[in-house]
Amino acid sequence: MSMNNLGIVKRNITRADRAAVDDLSRFGAATVHEAMGRVGLMQPYLRPVYAGARSCGTAVTVLMHPGDNWMLHVVAEQIQDGDVVVAAVTADCTDGYFGDLLATSFRARGARGLIIDGGVRDVKDLTEMKFPVWSKAISAKGTVKATLGSVNVPVVCAGVAVNPGDVVVADDDGVVVVPAAVARQVAEAATLREASEADKRARLAVGVLGLDMYNMRPALEKAGLKYID
Amino acid sequence: MSMNNLGIVKRNITRADRAAVDDLSRFGAATVHEAMGRVGLMQPYLRPVYAGARSCGTAVTVLMHPGDNWMLHVVAEQIQDGDVVVAAVTADCTDGYFGDLLATSFRARGARGLIIDGGVRDVKDLTEMKFPVWSKAISAKGTVKATLGSVNVPVVCAGVAVNPGDVVVADDDGVVVVPAAVARQVAEAATLREASEADKRARLAVGVLGLDMYNMRPALEKAGLKYID
Amino acid sequence: MSMNNLGIVKRNITRADRAAVDDLSRFGAATVHEAMGRVGLMQPYLRPVYAGARSCGTAVTVLMHPGDNWMLHVVAEQIQDGDVVVAAVTADCTDGYFGDLLATSFRARGARGLIIDGGVRDVKDLTEMKFPVWSKAISAKGTVKATLGSVNVPVVCAGVAVNPGDVVVADDDGVVVVPAAVARQVAEAATLREASEADKRARLAVGVLGLDMYNMRPALEKAGLKYID
Amino acid sequence: MSMNNLGIVKRNITRADRAAVDDLSRFGAATVHEAMGRVGLMQPYLRPVYAGARSCGTAVTVLMHPGDNWMLHVVAEQIQDGDVVVAAVTADCTDGYFGDLLATSFRARGARGLIIDGGVRDVKDLTEMKFPVWSKAISAKGTVKATLGSVNVPVVCAGVAVNPGDVVVADDDGVVVVPAAVARQVAEAATLREASEADKRARLAVGVLGLDMYNMRPALEKAGLKYID
Amino acid sequence: MSMNNLGIVKRNITRADRAAVDDLSRFGAATVHEAMGRVGLMQPYLRPVYAGARSCGTAVTVLMHPGDNWMLHVVAEQIQDGDVVVAAVTADCTDGYFGDLLATSFRARGARGLIIDGGVRDVKDLTEMKFPVWSKAISAKGTVKATLGSVNVPVVCAGVAVNPGDVVVADDDGVVVVPAAVARQVAEAATLREASEADKRARLAVGVLGLDMYNMRPALEKAGLKYID
Amino acid sequence: MSMNNLGIVKRNITRADRAAVDDLSRFGAATVHEAMGRVGLMQPYLRPVYAGARSCGTAVTVLMHPGDNWMLHVVAEQIQDGDVVVAAVTADCTDGYFGDLLATSFRARGARGLIIDGGVRDVKDLTEMKFPVWSKAISAKGTVKATLGSVNVPVVCAGVAVNPGDVVVADDDGVVVVPAAVARQVAEAATLREASEADKRARLAVGVLGLDMYNMRPALEKAGLKYID
Repeated sequence: MSMNNLGIVKRNITRADRAAVDDLSRFGAATVHEAMGRVGLMQPYLRPVYAGARSCGTAVTVLMHPGDNWMLHVVAEQIQDGDVVVAAVTADCTDGYFGDLLATSFRARGARGLIIDGGVRDVKDLTEMKFPVWSKAISAKGTVKATLGSVNVPVVCAGVAVNPGDVVVADDDGVVVVPAAVARQVAEAATLREASEADKRARLAVGVLGLDMYNMRPALEKAGLKYID
Repeated sequence: MSMNNLGIVKRNITRADRAAVDDLSRFGAATVHEAMGRVGLMQPYLRPVYAGARSCGTAVTVLMHPGDNWMLHVVAEQIQDGDVVVAAVTADCTDGYFGDLLATSFRARGARGLIIDGGVRDVKDLTEMKFPVWSKAISAKGTVKATLGSVNVPVVCAGVAVNPGDVVVADDDGVVVVPAAVARQVAEAATLREASEADKRARLAVGVLGLDMYNMRPALEKAGLKYID
Repeated sequence: MSMNNLGIVKRNITRADRAAVDDLSRFGAATVHEAMGRVGLMQPYLRPVYAGARSCGTAVTVLMHPGDNWMLHVVAEQIQDGDVVVAAVTADCTDGYFGDLLATSFRARGARGLIIDGGVRDVKDLTEMKFPVWSKAISAKGTVKATLGSVNVPVVCAGVAVNPGDVVVADDDGVVVVPAAVARQVAEAATLREASEADKRARLAVGVLGLDMYNMRPALEKAGLKYID
Repeated sequence: MSMNNLGIVKRNITRADRAAVDDLSRFGAATVHEAMGRVGLMQPYLRPVYAGARSCGTAVTVLMHPGDNWMLHVVAEQIQDGDVVVAAVTADCTDGYFGDLLATSFRARGARGLIIDGGVRDVKDLTEMKFPVWSKAISAKGTVKATLGSVNVPVVCAGVAVNPGDVVVADDDGVVVVPAAVARQVAEAATLREASEADKRARLAVGVLGLDMYNMRPALEKAGLKYID
Repeated sequence: MSMNNLGIVKRNITRADRAAVDDLSRFGAATVHEAMGRVGLMQPYLRPVYAGARSCGTAVTVLMHPGDNWMLHVVAEQIQDGDVVVAAVTADCTDGYFGDLLATSFRARGARGLIIDGGVRDVKDLTEMKFPVWSKAISAKGTVKATLGSVNVPVVCAGVAVNPGDVVVADDDGVVVVPAAVARQVAEAATLREASEADKRARLAVGVLGLDMYNMRPALEKAGLKYID
Repeated sequence: MSMNNLGIVKRNITRADRAAVDDLSRFGAATVHEAMGRVGLMQPYLRPVYAGARSCGTAVTVLMHPGDNWMLHVVAEQIQDGDVVVAAVTADCTDGYFGDLLATSFRARGARGLIIDGGVRDVKDLTEMKFPVWSKAISAKGTVKATLGSVNVPVVCAGVAVNPGDVVVADDDGVVVVPAAVARQVAEAATLREASEADKRARLAVGVLGLDMYNMRPALEKAGLKYID
């Protein structure tokens, strides 16, 4: 047994059930995050490189070192149709690990997007290609190809533990990771949650208060809320 | 007398003079901020959730705890037509306190926007609704409803003290707060300031230098500025 | 000899060769940065005030103090057609040093843009004018005109040393500075680099892997990369 | 009525009751903050310049501009024995506004410390003098004396509204502001709070659990906490 | 199967082999981190609350919500002699979750320290007690006890995935986590690494260069390093 | 002529006059920075790894890549007695580039300290050795040795341009760089400045106000300062 997972590429991973992924793809990150019980959300410093970016797919993971994007070429080979690449770095680094050439390659392999706890560049091209990327920074800074990382090992990306095959749901509000084993269950919870929202929205739109709709007044009073004039 | 204002909802507040608010609504945040003597500006980490957002109205205030948006439902009831909600938090927190349901409710009550020293979500919906929000972060992270804060008490939001009824002017450049008592006076100063800008712009556009237009050369020389070749 | 360059305006500077500047203007910041050997890039906290901003020109430099934009009026007189103003500050400050009036003046003098290690305002106007600005912050905060800085002295802006006359290339990916003496050489290297990219893109687009296109497999194997199932 | 308080020195302020200040001086910032109901705490980026710094006194306030410490000389004259100077800045700035000469002057006037939402220098001297300072940064960067601010006007310092005469309690844990009007009441609440802590500490020290001491088990169970093996 | 681990306390966890923990306790965080292959290090924003703090033990984990420290009381009961508490929060929050009372309780239960991705207070007491804590912030800000988290579930703390029973090694240089399954192996690698350091130190101390000691000159020359005069 | 300075080691550099360095070594960073006209100060995020650290010497410079400390071994050979190593990195990176082994080597070569725009580790050892280091971070994170940088080329470190041979003055207040050509002149200005401070301190200590000692009252009155009661 090795002490760590460096220098390893795992070829066979178990991806989340495709139907569950499809179901989850109908929801936004906020809905999925709530449906999971308010966990699984990456830190909000990850931002889409263009407004309106959306992605949902199964994670292939990659771990890199600061200023070194060698493993992005290695991970490209492991991408299957419907995957989202989740890239972690062993230390904070805003360098531009990824640009239009790699985006072209990833897309050709079937990738639906990239989540990277580092920087990217060529954002004008990425925007025109509509290749969705969530990153920590935008930087023209180039990287080297000198040190091994790993592919399809468990990683921590922007504060969330991601296993290969997990489902990634990302939009303007952020990136949420759904463990493969609960993908179906979360999709069901999200469906229920969303179903109730349309009705709530309609009532709020005509001036009904959340205080009444959610019956909050008794709890607020019990907590001691005082109205004064 | 209580030690603090927690757990209180003040229902009757004195809003700034409506005509003064209307006058101020014609100006941008930078102009108003200058007209006040360069004070009253919230910290620049507050950013609009979509480009081109603009808002001007009277503040209803709310104080919340980290990760708890209960009081946003309480403040909704206190909104009157023409108000802007100013939400402060007792400690730094980027959680998504506010989304499309609350925006629907706030708008139905007459709110013109939200200023929040925290995070928001559903930014795609907010953008489509054109409900203007200035926030510290965008985050899908959900919040709980467990602890009392207060409504319509004086708060500090993004570095500025805000009293209920003050005027809030917000655009792409930031958020400025005008105390209700000086709203008319500031509107007048802003009018004067803006009047002189069109002429200045025209002169600068044909190549006149600010050095000459503002007669800066004598002061620069006196300060010791040296031109060398 | 003076101890520092404060209070000095240098009128005659040697600008980079115009033809080289024109050549460089065809490339993005990432390409130029790579062509230089991965140096010369300003820190990624500098961001364009609107998406799609692009600029390339010769640097006129200005050094200011926190909260004081007096020298921006002084530098305006030194702008020649094709210049980009590079503004440094002696300490971190997000104040809005620059807005639509100065942009009007700079443009009238021939400026192609502004790079500022501080804040700017009137971003709606700047966007409509299409006057490209890269800044550290957007802030309506006004500044004073009280303390001398200098114009056309060497400065450090966002982590890069800039000499008057150097070439500045800026786009969505960031800002890179090319010393005047190597502008032609860098333009040639960029041309070579770009030439090879179209072919690479085409091959990647049909699914060829970077692993094979760049012949990375032997080096990865030598470094010890292991494939497991 | 003026639009703002710039350029004003208020000489006569009402300081909090001295006996209440003396009472509060026996407690730490955390205890006082809790006794107030968990409000009034400045943001935690304010740190003491040396470990073990403690201060308690009545606030004299000063508002300055970025990079300009002129008003620190003006506020010195308004210091009375037992005061703590609270210095706000109209925008973020880490410059070193304060050093050993001003500390010497402040101490000679009776000041018990400085709270500054900016930088300070001469920290070795301040440490040797045991003049307690809480600041946002340590920086040798000098400032100018060019622009008026104000003295003894309401300010916002590190996120908290401070009125002249309020009580400031500061130690290693941070800085809390007690409005003058509730100083006595808060001192009493702090006394009660502290009284109960010694007993609690003794019980915890012998292994009693907070779960039992605070009778938390029923509430945890009601909330749904599950123990598994 | 549940979608998440919220509201769960796992009582029986498998702790890393005690002898391996004892072995690891002889090394610093840097040595252990290197011995593992340069992985497992928490982000460097975690700092000890006093200089010279050191700790090594088995992780009991706790997951909390922003501004809510209820679960710290729950985790106290699960502490065994030789444990280190590792506390994660579902979103960034600098509140002071932990102070001298909890430290007293944790110590009484056998805890060797606390690693918390949040704030702590009473740092003077913690320093005097020599209870070692690594935190993201120091803040007097109090927390509530309102929302369930979990105990002894896998967490991500400051960028590292931690499982209950893993070994935590912390000192002035940071915090490193060693998975329980490789603790012995890492201890052996650290022993080898440390053994070679004494000899290296002695040689460097008499002026031998790393260039020669590590035989770097050929590789540098091959990489193209040029010496000029 | 090469486009950049990567892969170069310059062996012969002109160090500032030793007598001037000795003179400057008597002053703190704040005094020297003021004597230069308030320029030359590195950004305040650089902090000494132990309180009371002081250093003054001639700069040997090194430029590295993120996560790669190879060139620190190269620079060691170029150190002469009385030098201070100034280490820049081509992008932000907090990795621990330097520890006790390199400190032992640097000291053996005659180095008086290290200024690094990155992280360091083994801070307990550095503190015990009293080897003064100013860094951006403390991190146990290890680095690789894979990519060439340069030695004794001009660098930008923490916002300041440094040429080999310049004088570095560093203490608790920060790090200031004095160009070699003006070292003597700055030393003289610092001497004059310091001479006047003792007298000022004595007068302030007995209660004389800066307002009077510096004759500020007329300028304040002219600027419009108003005293109110």
